[in-house]
Amino acid sequence: MIFPILFTFFLLLSSSNAAVQDFCVADLTAPDGPAGYSCKSPANVKVDDFVFSGLGVAGNTTNIIKAAVTPAFAAQFPGVNGLGISLARLDLAVGGVIPFHTHPGGSEVLIVIEGTICAGFVSSANTVYLQTLEKGDIMVFPQGLLHFQVNGGETTALAFVSFSSPSPGLQILDYALFKNDLPTELIAQTTFLDVAQIKKLKAALGGTN
Amino acid sequence: MIFPILFTFFLLLSSSNAAVQDFCVADLTAPDGPAGYSCKSPANVKVDDFVFSGLGVAGNTTNIIKAAVTPAFAAQFPGVNGLGISLARLDLAVGGVIPFHTHPGGSEVLIVIEGTICAGFVSSANTVYLQTLEKGDIMVFPQGLLHFQVNGGETTALAFVSFSSPSPGLQILDYALFKNDLPTELIAQTTFLDVAQIKKLKAALGGTN
Amino acid sequence: MIFPILFTFFLLLSSSNAAVQDFCVADLTAPDGPAGYSCKSPANVKVDDFVFSGLGVAGNTTNIIKAAVTPAFAAQFPGVNGLGISLARLDLAVGGVIPFHTHPGGSEVLIVIEGTICAGFVSSANTVYLQTLEKGDIMVFPQGLLHFQVNGGETTALAFVSFSSPSPGLQILDYALFKNDLPTELIAQTTFLDVAQIKKLKAALGGTN
Amino acid sequence: MIFPILFTFFLLLSSSNAAVQDFCVADLTAPDGPAGYSCKSPANVKVDDFVFSGLGVAGNTTNIIKAAVTPAFAAQFPGVNGLGISLARLDLAVGGVIPFHTHPGGSEVLIVIEGTICAGFVSSANTVYLQTLEKGDIMVFPQGLLHFQVNGGETTALAFVSFSSPSPGLQILDYALFKNDLPTELIAQTTFLDVAQIKKLKAALGGTN
Amino acid sequence: MIFPILFTFFLLLSSSNAAVQDFCVADLTAPDGPAGYSCKSPANVKVDDFVFSGLGVAGNTTNIIKAAVTPAFAAQFPGVNGLGISLARLDLAVGGVIPFHTHPGGSEVLIVIEGTICAGFVSSANTVYLQTLEKGDIMVFPQGLLHFQVNGGETTALAFVSFSSPSPGLQILDYALFKNDLPTELIAQTTFLDVAQIKKLKAALGGTN
Amino acid sequence: MIFPILFTFFLLLSSSNAAVQDFCVADLTAPDGPAGYSCKSPANVKVDDFVFSGLGVAGNTTNIIKAAVTPAFAAQFPGVNGLGISLARLDLAVGGVIPFHTHPGGSEVLIVIEGTICAGFVSSANTVYLQTLEKGDIMVFPQGLLHFQVNGGETTALAFVSFSSPSPGLQILDYALFKNDLPTELIAQTTFLDVAQIKKLKAALGGTN
Repeated sequence: MIFPILFTFFLLLSSSNAAVQDFCVADLTAPDGPAGYSCKSPANVKVDDFVFSGLGVAGNTTNIIKAAVTPAFAAQFPGVNGLGISLARLDLAVGGVIPFHTHPGGSEVLIVIEGTICAGFVSSANTVYLQTLEKGDIMVFPQGLLHFQVNGGETTALAFVSFSSPSPGLQILDYALFKNDLPTELIAQTTFLDVAQIKKLKAALGGTN
Repeated sequence: MIFPILFTFFLLLSSSNAAVQDFCVADLTAPDGPAGYSCKSPANVKVDDFVFSGLGVAGNTTNIIKAAVTPAFAAQFPGVNGLGISLARLDLAVGGVIPFHTHPGGSEVLIVIEGTICAGFVSSANTVYLQTLEKGDIMVFPQGLLHFQVNGGETTALAFVSFSSPSPGLQILDYALFKNDLPTELIAQTTFLDVAQIKKLKAALGGTN
Repeated sequence: MIFPILFTFFLLLSSSNAAVQDFCVADLTAPDGPAGYSCKSPANVKVDDFVFSGLGVAGNTTNIIKAAVTPAFAAQFPGVNGLGISLARLDLAVGGVIPFHTHPGGSEVLIVIEGTICAGFVSSANTVYLQTLEKGDIMVFPQGLLHFQVNGGETTALAFVSFSSPSPGLQILDYALFKNDLPTELIAQTTFLDVAQIKKLKAALGGTN
Repeated sequence: MIFPILFTFFLLLSSSNAAVQDFCVADLTAPDGPAGYSCKSPANVKVDDFVFSGLGVAGNTTNIIKAAVTPAFAAQFPGVNGLGISLARLDLAVGGVIPFHTHPGGSEVLIVIEGTICAGFVSSANTVYLQTLEKGDIMVFPQGLLHFQVNGGETTALAFVSFSSPSPGLQILDYALFKNDLPTELIAQTTFLDVAQIKKLKAALGGTN
Repeated sequence: MIFPILFTFFLLLSSSNAAVQDFCVADLTAPDGPAGYSCKSPANVKVDDFVFSGLGVAGNTTNIIKAAVTPAFAAQFPGVNGLGISLARLDLAVGGVIPFHTHPGGSEVLIVIEGTICAGFVSSANTVYLQTLEKGDIMVFPQGLLHFQVNGGETTALAFVSFSSPSPGLQILDYALFKNDLPTELIAQTTFLDVAQIKKLKAALGGTN
Repeated sequence: MIFPILFTFFLLLSSSNAAVQDFCVADLTAPDGPAGYSCKSPANVKVDDFVFSGLGVAGNTTNIIKAAVTPAFAAQFPGVNGLGISLARLDLAVGGVIPFHTHPGGSEVLIVIEGTICAGFVSSANTVYLQTLEKGDIMVFPQGLLHFQVNGGETTALAFVSFSSPSPGLQILDYALFKNDLPTELIAQTTFLDVAQIKKLKAALGGTN
């Protein structure tokens, strides 16, 4: 069967709706709003916008935490803007640790690719959910709850994490408390940590006050 | 009772909140984002923005599919931007067909105004839901599922369709597979259609490769 | 090509996910929640759940308002439950009126099928948007704003309305104020209407107090 | 323990994601969209954006309604943009009244700080929910429904109200009907109010037509 | 004008839609789901469901933190279920402290009613936003971010807080880390706190391990 | 510092809110609704609910498509219910193919763990986005659009996919068209495929009619 005449409708759609309909590749130079970044013009969208290679390279774990996190959030991977999803890569050397942190903006699922990872989260009811994860295991960390990952084995561990948001955010407990100018006395008052402890971690992290 | 003094509050509201509160008429010239188009300035909003006459004219069905679709999505009808709703008009001449397609971005409800329409959708479980619809009948097609409409009678059929999104999108199966440069071999591999079948439809639709 | 062996995966999906994935036909006998009604068991879902004929019959307009509204909300049309959309039919005899009302839960788009309808809404900024709509015209009424429709011609008018919610709700101004036991004095105090006016409408509508 | 080397990752996040992640302080000069205002650049965000003092001053109740409403919506308090919440202050002098109104865009919770407030709302089923609220009492008014507040005591009443939206909107019944150019005949037709009543209130409110 | 004949439509709506449309008062005995609690049957809904007096009583601050929080979440105040909003009361005696905590499920706005409150939050970028709030001041704390409140004056402080969710949750840092059976060694590893510090706080809070 | 007296508030929260706040582990035996499954009682929630090992085992690819998909949707992995996220595993033997399909309910991000995968999707504008993905590459497939994956190398390929929904659904093109009782004539009419082609695929897939 032949189709010599095209639907005017479809031509119309093609030219005007594409950006708003299917995807909204982030235009990082334009204003952003509560729902995400503005959309790149459809004319400028290429397959490269939907592909990202940055998670293929191990992060640098030669640091004191012996761990690295490589994000593919909307800011790095514009194709996920507005699509409710993003990824990141976790490298944990032997003894590596991703310290306690939260993602204010999304839930997380982690999958272990290599090694052994001891992971856990704490609920609002203060219940601890701990598990040693082997290769192929996955674990979910509900949005906003404190959680951590630790290399639980004798070899390098690698995991990928998915988030239910293109920009889930990340609040690392130690950084939030000790890596800024929050006054030591105030931290003591609001965490009941000893002043000596606070000063020690502030010094380590470059915090002031 | 008299009201000589107006609420400062209300004046304040009038001047600053109108755009964000009640509606957000699409400004098609400004950046758009995941939630839709930017809002036209309230000062420029007129009743015309909330009214659309394009669905009052029968689409041109003198084409091989003997059908026409006339949309009133946000791109054509800026008043629906951000309001979770849009409309379109379906004209089916005798023998007319709206081929299998999906709306990635919204669910659809169709109402038959004239004639008889045989419509159906297929669920993720591959169950077929088929119905012959007479004047006044309505049918819902859940978001993202393959569906079609066919003129099932001896007279012209007319229907209006509503969508649960101002930009529901439209992916026509035949167009997606055969009306572009997707390599024939790849299509065969991913659909199990015969190469001859593919080439035939590509030729009909102007696809290449 | 032949497919002698089915994907275990797909069988798995078919049996367990169907209800939650594609649709959630309302089970009106089960508990409902903020997102809508509970889902009917997939085994009991039939094409009838996705089709509704009630909008094909003219409503009875032999009443003082000379109008009738026939809904196809989730409660009448279970297939739309959870799908963000619903429909209704408006019949306006000559001189017919749908008095001022709001839909707390959804935006509305109206399409005129026969006759002439004078419709309008008022924004939060108290701006009036009025239009005389002819056959084929559509008008959008943003969520929660006061609006009305009146038969503006010399013949019966018929329109269909779509909503951006399966249960948009309906608050008719006169009913809300005068068709219950809200104390007359309180109504006067909070609307600045004259007591005589209030008593008159209460009597007409069967309100008390 | 010391942390001489910072995560490259975290630095990366800090510089690019902050605006989109945690908050989106309204840039009232930039385009807005269905989800709210565009975000102020993170570099320009200060604590002042998250604080508002305007609700600390009693509104001016020397008007005929003997009441005042002071809003802290996104337009006044840019920090709430995109966060699903806003506040306002209600001052009711003795005999003060907030006339019947709706919030098309959000639900409301009111808390009485001083005095006595008689409040109520009407449901879509025309059921009246009335209560006399004392200091410390709270009451919720579901989105879009007609409600009012009246000073029910012999002293000044003060309440604060919270909304489930940064821009909940406000449609005051009397203003919507009588404070514009909606034709008197049309109002009579769509509300069944007497022409004399309508003219009287139009005159009081400065409406025309 | 009289209304001897009611709309069949309206009667229909009244009986079937009320629960799903306007509100969904929590039935705490029925199953809950991701969107909230199941709805109480409309027949059993009374004005009491929309009113709550619990925030009128000062919480007991004779404890070591010299503070008390009294919630009006959906679990206490069923009327807010599904409405995107809830409230709580904060009492801070002199020297009182609400220690660092987060609300995984909602943003918060606080208003000072009496006294002086020093409050602050930390962003994902580790920036501190601190402010001393006087009577009438309000401050917003974006969802999921660490924040605290401290009595900054010489008298009792009282504040009310609103949340953008009927169940915003609450994760108190000290409780999450020290008030359960999370192994001390693991806490040290994932927070870099000294073992002695951890043991001390565990002992204080009744944590084990 | 010691904490002999616990906050009544916190105990209260612990006992009543946990389920609704942080997570809602699917109770597969209870009614489900548009937002997902009902929540398991908090008392019965264990760490096992948040962990899943099923993706650690290679699927069986000894089938004609030489591929296997192993899901971790809410139905298999109850912990993700209501959290906006889920995972699956893709095994592609040499020559393996995941045929054209859509996910009506969510967007997808794929990451290649081993081998080479040639993947692509087609937009509503019929534009093809094709890429050969190597180990560590990720690609996003926007919700509802037709896409496929093919093993593009000489070794087994393994990938994990994340979805922006706990139940994204899956509609496989060939199954939807040929693996049911959709009448052959109707398929021909709505896809323009040759009857012979249709009969052939129906025979292969076990379709009838």
